[in-house]
Amino acid sequence: MRDVCPFFSIIERDLTMRHHHLTPPILTVLSLLSFAGLSHADPLPSWNDGDNKKQIISFVESVSNPGGEHYVPEPQRIAVFDNDGTLWGEQPLYFQLLFAMDRAGTLDSDLLATDAQRAAAQGDAQAILERGEQGLQEVFDLTHANLSVDNFSDIVSRWLDEARHPETNRRYDDMVYQPMLELLSFLRDKDFETYIVSAGGLHFMRAFATQTYGIEPQNVIGSSTNTEVVDQDGELLLMKTPGVSWYNDGPAKIEAIDRHIGQRPIIAGGNSDGDVPMMIWVTEGDGPRLGIMIHHTDSEREAEYDRDSEIGKLDKGLDEAASRGWSLIDMESDWDAVYPYAD
Amino acid sequence: MRDVCPFFSIIERDLTMRHHHLTPPILTVLSLLSFAGLSHADPLPSWNDGDNKKQIISFVESVSNPGGEHYVPEPQRIAVFDNDGTLWGEQPLYFQLLFAMDRAGTLDSDLLATDAQRAAAQGDAQAILERGEQGLQEVFDLTHANLSVDNFSDIVSRWLDEARHPETNRRYDDMVYQPMLELLSFLRDKDFETYIVSAGGLHFMRAFATQTYGIEPQNVIGSSTNTEVVDQDGELLLMKTPGVSWYNDGPAKIEAIDRHIGQRPIIAGGNSDGDVPMMIWVTEGDGPRLGIMIHHTDSEREAEYDRDSEIGKLDKGLDEAASRGWSLIDMESDWDAVYPYAD
Repeated sequence: MRDVCPFFSIIERDLTMRHHHLTPPILTVLSLLSFAGLSHADPLPSWNDGDNKKQIISFVESVSNPGGEHYVPEPQRIAVFDNDGTLWGEQPLYFQLLFAMDRAGTLDSDLLATDAQRAAAQGDAQAILERGEQGLQEVFDLTHANLSVDNFSDIVSRWLDEARHPETNRRYDDMVYQPMLELLSFLRDKDFETYIVSAGGLHFMRAFATQTYGIEPQNVIGSSTNTEVVDQDGELLLMKTPGVSWYNDGPAKIEAIDRHIGQRPIIAGGNSDGDVPMMIWVTEGDGPRLGIMIHHTDSEREAEYDRDSEIGKLDKGLDEAASRGWSLIDMESDWDAVYPYAD
Repeated sequence: MRDVCPFFSIIERDLTMRHHHLTPPILTVLSLLSFAGLSHADPLPSWNDGDNKKQIISFVESVSNPGGEHYVPEPQRIAVFDNDGTLWGEQPLYFQLLFAMDRAGTLDSDLLATDAQRAAAQGDAQAILERGEQGLQEVFDLTHANLSVDNFSDIVSRWLDEARHPETNRRYDDMVYQPMLELLSFLRDKDFETYIVSAGGLHFMRAFATQTYGIEPQNVIGSSTNTEVVDQDGELLLMKTPGVSWYNDGPAKIEAIDRHIGQRPIIAGGNSDGDVPMMIWVTEGDGPRLGIMIHHTDSEREAEYDRDSEIGKLDKGLDEAASRGWSLIDMESDWDAVYPYAD
């Protein structure tokens, strides 16, 4: 863990981004107004003015206004977000697959039993993907199993400290979307419970979700390997074992929300077709509902992809967003900043 | 739902039980002291004085005292409790099985395809149990599947309103243990997050957990049928389908806590051998830990059973409680009242 206080890095980022163009005296005035409860400070400063920003702010304020006609009581103020491509990047490959390849490269070569595992150790993603689901499973069995949950978590944390993204040369957990960090904070300020509902690995995401997003371990819902309780020298240890116990994508996200949360959220955010069933289910419910679909349109600051992408394919979701009135976020025009760090 | 406010019935019970032997003037003085923050009112009034009560109160106060040497920060103050036999009764049969038999009796006889299912419809528990796990599975497939989660929840709520326990003639959700309701409230007063971790059905328990225990749907962890998302006339519906996706007993409770909570709790309560792995794992962790094992010793007010019982067998757990220093609760001597209602 980088900081003792898990929220510190987020607070720091918020302040940096919100006020980086303000002079100190204005900052002081804003602080005083805020302290006096008089502030109308922008809750989403990295979002450009426009219909999407307006729709999001107006929705959140109306459901949390006790006197208003669209008021939703606090226990039902639940928001769920996909992770890869929604809260952090997913190009050129899912970061968790990049982690798996890095980890495969550190393992004793005796452990590399299949072509896909040897390809992983050599960092050859193409050769893994050519072997399809079976190849991926072999790589995950190699790198995500046969160790304790605690040990795995430490390994992911160390990797986050050491690894750098191939294109930006930044920490992976710095490549989170500043506008979405602001949205998560805004929602929690309005007494929303915020959850991750991702196809990413449960134990992988928990290694950074609290520090990076302010989302506690119990609010992370993801895919998982099998697990097993073993007695190690008289002590019970929870081990990750080969195989997938839950693959959290598509309609499975709805089932996972039921099992884990037990209520239909009122906000769902995603960026790919794997999020569409969840977003339909959330926004079909009675009462006020908000769908937020992130469209990767910014080739200069991030990446541009949708209907034909192998990673984060957004095809059906583009049509659904239009017909269902979801906020379709155009990253290039809707976001004033993409990452928390200055470019 | 009986009340609009889900907490009302608990508050009512607390007040009734805490002060039922006090005269009104004393009650007023206590209220004033409490209002002024000066109260040393007993947080567990239905618990008789003794080592167990002392151990529990002292543990909870020490871990929530910010200045103390045993202080545990709020996010780690997590307590997990079994349900059947720990928070509510489980005799003469698990209440969920009684529900299943009642529901089987309401179904069209064409649906009764097996001996166990026909036995269930006739209320013949013995005939079901003689058919072992297979017989039970057939009864649960009949009564807990092929309907939506929402519909199932309504059916359970209606059953709770109408059904009465064969011995006490009380509502099943009145047959909860008053001392445990007080403990749950005390823990939440001290900023603990309280969870149910039970072999009971997830959707079954959620139908009463919030109203009865003040435990929200997302803090209920249980067994579950399979589920499936279906498109019904253009609307996504979550259906319960035959088969068990997760049987939450024994070591599986540890795996479920990991998947759901992601942290090792510091308090675990149970009453049978199925709770022992969870209680060992919780109390083996570093720092202050508390295990609470309920021993059903009160044949007059409730039931007396342990090592040889078919329901809620407590054998290994009795030995572990002694050797590991868990609070072993003797219901007859430790509890001044068993149920929230006056006997």
